[in-house]
Amino acid sequence: MNNLNKVKKLIINKPLKLDCGKTISNFPLAYETYGELNEKKDNAILAFHALTGDQFASGINPITNKEGWWSYAVGPNKAIDTKKYFVICANVIGGCMGSYGPSNINKKTNKSFGTEFPVITINDMVNAQYHLLEFFKIEKLFSVVGGSMGGMQVLQFVSNFPDKSFTAIPIACTASHSAQNIALNELGRQSIMADHNWSNGFYQENKSPNKGLAVARMAAHITYLSKKGLQEKFGRKLQERDDLKFGFDADFQIESYLRYQGSVFVDRFDANSYLYITRAMDYFDLTKQFNGNLSKAFEKSNTKFFIISFTSDWLYPTSENREIVIALNSLGKDVGFAEITSDKGHDSFLLDVPDFLNTVKNFLNTSYKKINEKRI
Amino acid sequence: MNNLNKVKKLIINKPLKLDCGKTISNFPLAYETYGELNEKKDNAILAFHALTGDQFASGINPITNKEGWWSYAVGPNKAIDTKKYFVICANVIGGCMGSYGPSNINKKTNKSFGTEFPVITINDMVNAQYHLLEFFKIEKLFSVVGGSMGGMQVLQFVSNFPDKSFTAIPIACTASHSAQNIALNELGRQSIMADHNWSNGFYQENKSPNKGLAVARMAAHITYLSKKGLQEKFGRKLQERDDLKFGFDADFQIESYLRYQGSVFVDRFDANSYLYITRAMDYFDLTKQFNGNLSKAFEKSNTKFFIISFTSDWLYPTSENREIVIALNSLGKDVGFAEITSDKGHDSFLLDVPDFLNTVKNFLNTSYKKINEKRI
Repeated sequence: MNNLNKVKKLIINKPLKLDCGKTISNFPLAYETYGELNEKKDNAILAFHALTGDQFASGINPITNKEGWWSYAVGPNKAIDTKKYFVICANVIGGCMGSYGPSNINKKTNKSFGTEFPVITINDMVNAQYHLLEFFKIEKLFSVVGGSMGGMQVLQFVSNFPDKSFTAIPIACTASHSAQNIALNELGRQSIMADHNWSNGFYQENKSPNKGLAVARMAAHITYLSKKGLQEKFGRKLQERDDLKFGFDADFQIESYLRYQGSVFVDRFDANSYLYITRAMDYFDLTKQFNGNLSKAFEKSNTKFFIISFTSDWLYPTSENREIVIALNSLGKDVGFAEITSDKGHDSFLLDVPDFLNTVKNFLNTSYKKINEKRI
Repeated sequence: MNNLNKVKKLIINKPLKLDCGKTISNFPLAYETYGELNEKKDNAILAFHALTGDQFASGINPITNKEGWWSYAVGPNKAIDTKKYFVICANVIGGCMGSYGPSNINKKTNKSFGTEFPVITINDMVNAQYHLLEFFKIEKLFSVVGGSMGGMQVLQFVSNFPDKSFTAIPIACTASHSAQNIALNELGRQSIMADHNWSNGFYQENKSPNKGLAVARMAAHITYLSKKGLQEKFGRKLQERDDLKFGFDADFQIESYLRYQGSVFVDRFDANSYLYITRAMDYFDLTKQFNGNLSKAFEKSNTKFFIISFTSDWLYPTSENREIVIALNSLGKDVGFAEITSDKGHDSFLLDVPDFLNTVKNFLNTSYKKINEKRI
C-alpha cells in the first residue's frame, strides 16, 4: 500500500481507553472532507464507512484510482449534497487506509503490529472519530450517517454523544450482530488464517495471505447480493464460450465475477485489518451494552432519526432495522423509517437505488430547513 | 481413509460414456443395502445422497463410526421403513467412499487421479447407479428418493429411465442450479484451491488441503441452516467464559461450532471429491437439457411424484421446487407437493422433522398399497 503517508491524518494526542482495557495515544486517524464547513458550523455530516470502506467516500480514491465507495450518495447535488453540507469521513481505527491499524509499525519491534494490535470495537472506532469534532471546532453535527457497519457506528455515536448530532441515518444495520453474521465473519477470518502466508498475523507486505483474503472477500460478496439479484444478473450465463468446459476454470460468469472481486480486493485491503474489523462487528451489541434494553441507548438524546432498510437485504434484514425503530418509538423519539424495495441486496446502500438516495436527500434537506427555521 | 477396500462394491464392466466425452469402464460403485428385497422384487428404493453423503444412509457408518447421514429417515419402522422396503444407496462416482473418484489410483501413474479424473455430471452419476438395478435384477424400482443433490439425481433418473420407478420423491432441490448456488460452490472450490497443500490436485494423503477443505465446509454449513435457526440455537451465546476475550479464539459458540464442523469433515472427505461433486451440481440444468422446457424431461414417464420443500431453506427455496411441480402439472402427471414448516433450513431433510418424515412415510406406504391393490 503505497502513498499512505500522503493521506490526510489527524494525530490524536489524547489517550483513548479501548474496550479491551488498553490505552492508545498519539495515533493517526486518516480522514477526508467534501464540501465546505459554513461559518455557523452547522452543516457538518460525519459519514461512517462499512467493513471494507475508507475515508474516500466520494470522487476518485487516490490510492486505488477508483471511484469512492459512496460516490452515488455523496457529491455536488447528490443525496448528501456537498454544495450544502460539509461531509467528513474517517478511516476507522483497525483499518488500513492510514488510520491506526495492524499494518502500522510497532515502534517497539520496528515491524507491523500484526496480531499484537489490540482488538478494537465499534465503540472504540466512534470514540476515536469524535476527536474530529474538536479538530474542526464543530459544536454539533448536522448528521451522522452510514450503512452496514457504518450504521452501527451511527447508533453507537448517538448513544455515546447524545447531544452531538441533530439527525442520524443508520442504514441496513443492526443493534446486535446476529449469529449468522458472526458465522459469516468467522468464515472470512478462518479463510485468512488458513492461508499459509498468514503466519499468525506477522506476514511481510510482499508475502501476504492474499489467497485467503480473496476467498474471504468472495464469501462476503455473495452475502452482499440477493439471490434474486444474482439470478437476474448472472443466472447460468457462461463466459464467452458457449459450452461447458468440463474443468475447474471459470465456466459461469458468476465464477469469474467472484474471482475478480477477490483479486482486486487484495490490492487495496490488509488481511489483518479484515480480521480486526470483522471482530469489531461481531462484538457489537448495543442492546447488551444497556442490559437488554436498547431504548436506554437513546434515552438522553433528541437526535432525529431516519432508519432505512432494503427488502432484499438478508444480511441485515428489515426485521433487525425495525428493532431500532421500535426502541426509539417506545421513547416517543422523532424517528422515520423506510424499507426500500430493491433486488440489489445489502449492497443497495452503495448503489444507484433512486428511492433510497431520494429518501436520504429529502430527509436531510427537510431537516436542515427545519433546524434553520427554528433558529430564525 | 482406511478400510475402504472393505466396503461393498459393484464393479461396472460395461463402458459408461460420460457427458465430458470420455468413456470409463471397470470402475467401482460402492453401495450399501438396508432391509430385504422381496420375492416379487417390487419393494426396492434407490436413495441418492447429497454433496457430502455416501452409501451409509442408516445405522453406523463403519468408516466414520458415526450414524449414517439419513438415520432419521431410513431404518426399521422409520419413514423409509426397512422392514417393508429394500433400500439401496450408492456412493456417487466422483465421491470418496469407495466409488470411482479422484482419490482412486490411476493405473497409468500409480498415483491418485487427482485433477486428471474426468469432470462428471449428475447424469453420469445416475447412469452409473442404474447398473444396480441390473445387478439386483430389479425390473422396476418402487421409489427413487433423495434430498438436495440427491433430489437432482431423482429428477435425472426419472428423465433418463421413465419407466423404471413407480414413485419419486425429490426433496429440497432444483431442476437448474441457481447463480447463488454456483457462487457458493465456487467459494468452496476456491477455498480448497487456495490451500498451499492442494498442489493443483496432486496432493499426498498425509499432506492434503485440510485447511481449505475445512473452510469450504464451514461456508457450506452456514448455508444449510436458516438465519432464524442459527439465532435461536446460538444467538450471541459465548463459550463457557462469560466475557469477550478480545482476541481471535472462538468467543461465540457459533464460532467453535463451525470450527468443529470443519475439523471433523476433513477426516471423512476428500478435497478433490468436493471439487468434482460441486462441479456436477453446478452443471445440473435439467431444464436446459430439454431446451428450456422442463416438462419434456418427464413426458415419457408415469412415475408418481411427491415433491417436498422447507419454509426456511434458502439454498433450494420452495419457489425452485415448485417449478418442478408446475412442469409435472402442465403434463397432468400424478404429483403431490408439500412445503414443510421448519426453522432448520436446508438441513431439514436430514434432521428429525416429524412433519417431513411423516409425509415421506405416508406417501410411500399409501403408494405401495395402491400399486399392490392394482396388481390383485
